[in-house]
Amino acid sequence: MSKVFISTVPFADKNTLPIELLQSSGIDFLINPLNRKLNEEELIKLIDDCDVLIAGTEPISDRVLENAKNLKFISRVGIGLDNIDLASARKRGIKVSYTPDAPAPAVAELTIGLMLSLLRSVHISNSQMHRGEWYRFFGRRIPEVTIGVIGVGRIGSRVLRRLQAFGSPRVLVNDLKPKNNIAPDLKIEWVGKEQIYKESDLISLHIPLTNHTKNIIDRNELLMMKKDAMIINTSRGGIINEEELFKILQEGHLGGAAIDVFNHEPYSGNLAKIERCLLTSHMGSMSIDCRSRMEIEATEEAIRFISGEELKGSVPIFEYDLQAR
Amino acid sequence: MSKVFISTVPFADKNTLPIELLQSSGIDFLINPLNRKLNEEELIKLIDDCDVLIAGTEPISDRVLENAKNLKFISRVGIGLDNIDLASARKRGIKVSYTPDAPAPAVAELTIGLMLSLLRSVHISNSQMHRGEWYRFFGRRIPEVTIGVIGVGRIGSRVLRRLQAFGSPRVLVNDLKPKNNIAPDLKIEWVGKEQIYKESDLISLHIPLTNHTKNIIDRNELLMMKKDAMIINTSRGGIINEEELFKILQEGHLGGAAIDVFNHEPYSGNLAKIERCLLTSHMGSMSIDCRSRMEIEATEEAIRFISGEELKGSVPIFEYDLQAR
Repeated sequence: MSKVFISTVPFADKNTLPIELLQSSGIDFLINPLNRKLNEEELIKLIDDCDVLIAGTEPISDRVLENAKNLKFISRVGIGLDNIDLASARKRGIKVSYTPDAPAPAVAELTIGLMLSLLRSVHISNSQMHRGEWYRFFGRRIPEVTIGVIGVGRIGSRVLRRLQAFGSPRVLVNDLKPKNNIAPDLKIEWVGKEQIYKESDLISLHIPLTNHTKNIIDRNELLMMKKDAMIINTSRGGIINEEELFKILQEGHLGGAAIDVFNHEPYSGNLAKIERCLLTSHMGSMSIDCRSRMEIEATEEAIRFISGEELKGSVPIFEYDLQAR
Repeated sequence: MSKVFISTVPFADKNTLPIELLQSSGIDFLINPLNRKLNEEELIKLIDDCDVLIAGTEPISDRVLENAKNLKFISRVGIGLDNIDLASARKRGIKVSYTPDAPAPAVAELTIGLMLSLLRSVHISNSQMHRGEWYRFFGRRIPEVTIGVIGVGRIGSRVLRRLQAFGSPRVLVNDLKPKNNIAPDLKIEWVGKEQIYKESDLISLHIPLTNHTKNIIDRNELLMMKKDAMIINTSRGGIINEEELFKILQEGHLGGAAIDVFNHEPYSGNLAKIERCLLTSHMGSMSIDCRSRMEIEATEEAIRFISGEELKGSVPIFEYDLQAR
């Protein structure tokens, strides 16, 4: 009989359907008993003789896969694949599926919220008011600024569509290739990344973490940005060099930043010393509806695999290629 | 020669055009030297023998007007008139103008930002992360909740229009009378205030402070709301009973609140003890463009009055009636 290990947490916290689906299929399963992101050692120990892994963002490395002797299928709850060694999985005949659409609306909405907080210094005012200080910050409205978006796939395009209701900012966009009709009410300029760094007031990143995007925003890129520019990362830790961002902010460069994703999570690092750096705890996909949808889709896919049915969310070849480049 | 006292602060901070306009018209003026909101005594002293007041939200009471022997015109930077005793002004032949349109886009945009922060616990996560704590909050997206809006004039209607890009939440609206075509993409239900209190997940107030709206949200109304409902006030302090809101939150009722306006400003009160109460320092209109537009419009109106030109922003009769009711 198939055994499933569920490493992602929280799981079935707000909607118990994933557990009910597993139970009614008579599948034996174990949910991550440590209730936090696992490291390699812990994952190796807990995955033990399981056939199927319902996975979060923990490191599913070559070493983990080598030790998971019975593993045949990974069903990833979410979109990022940076934590899975896809080449190693392929080599070992382990299939991988994911749920790329489910988190997008929640991440896009959080991103707009972070933009509005940054532009109006809401996070700084809130901290000040809670310590009894009163200062009326000047801010800027969305139609008054130049917004740069790097990556307009499922999430970036949704961010742009939600921006349409706020008026007509100047919008600079970069992606592997230009796309049509992302946000018909915005006048989008397709430009190089360097132009985005130099001319934007507000930069938002919506790209996967790969060998090519690791530290793509490093000291050099941060220094290209306007002195009062603001940057948002709701994609993956590692795309911005965290320590360089800390140094730059401490030196007084940039108007602010909003960071939801980190190299090591749970995060406890230097950015916490910077008041104008708005920090959230990888909550992009954490709306009840999107998180539930991700978990249900990943669980259904695991059940399909176990029952020998056709998979619906197989990771496409281009994701393997992207990681191999 | 006419003398102008400018009580509102900041003034001409980001755009010096208002000062240039006064200077090029050869008008003698004084800007509030205390650089904060004045009380009655201070205003009486500083207004002295001025003919014209370019006003903020300080108390322009019957007593102030009685002592302002030369005052003939009040040009209010902004929309709220709750701080001006309009009957007393009329009795003394003092004309009043305001700039009701200028602040609306900035207040609406801040309101959407506060909604998104509340729904995703951004403010709480930011505080926790800055003290080294990590907790991934579940949140809700706009199309998943019922939004109640009380007051759909210049600001409330703009809030609804900006919400249109986020999907289709259930929207409950109350105003003195229903209006058409506020936000054509939303299905709006016109309901009584009590239904808004009972059925909304997120309530936003966009009404003036009058005798009829003072403490309109009191303990009784707060207790009608769902246990996890959230309330936003970017209108005027005094519309929600601040102390009752504090008590209710402390007792564990309501999921959160976002308060930008207070009975006494600068605010330093009990709400600062509540982490899930997001506090900002009356920043609704404080986008550089809107604040500048308010100041320029109010200054131009003051110059029109002094030069005997026709006024463009005279406070209409219904505002006098509203205050007298």
